[in-house]
Amino acid sequence: MRAHIHVTLKPEVLDPQGDAVTRSLKQLGHGAVKSVRIGKFIDVDLGQIDRNTAESNVQDFCKKLLANPVMEDFRFELVES
Amino acid sequence: MRAHIHVTLKPEVLDPQGDAVTRSLKQLGHGAVKSVRIGKFIDVDLGQIDRNTAESNVQDFCKKLLANPVMEDFRFELVES
Repeated sequence: MRAHIHVTLKPEVLDPQGDAVTRSLKQLGHGAVKSVRIGKFIDVDLGQIDRNTAESNVQDFCKKLLANPVMEDFRFELVES
Repeated sequence: MRAHIHVTLKPEVLDPQGDAVTRSLKQLGHGAVKSVRIGKFIDVDLGQIDRNTAESNVQDFCKKLLANPVMEDFRFELVES
């Protein structure tokens, strides 16, 4: 079982890295670009565990390790590997 | 129009950050975890452009700016905003 996890900044949190990329894109000629937000995509090979255990494990370790709950949201899908 | 872009390390490239997270997850009690790969998730608000232009623009700036073609792969979906 694999987990595909997206960790993104909460909408109200400023994203200076995204702002820098927005400016670079405009300089590259993509003037229509309005904004860029940069997050993480984490692919975890969970090994041989059932879907229910996987669901609660991923919730657990996203909260404890992968996402900072003050600044970030997370969401994930479980994928049979 | 928005682009949801995933930038991931090519499979043959080592991921020390992912390896560190794997070890931390095992220490947290998730001993079944086999591997972790960490990539980027980039959400771009492309402004008012049509789908064909969006497609070619995103291809262009992923190659030139967002992904390092030596070490990284990218894929994207276009989403009506």
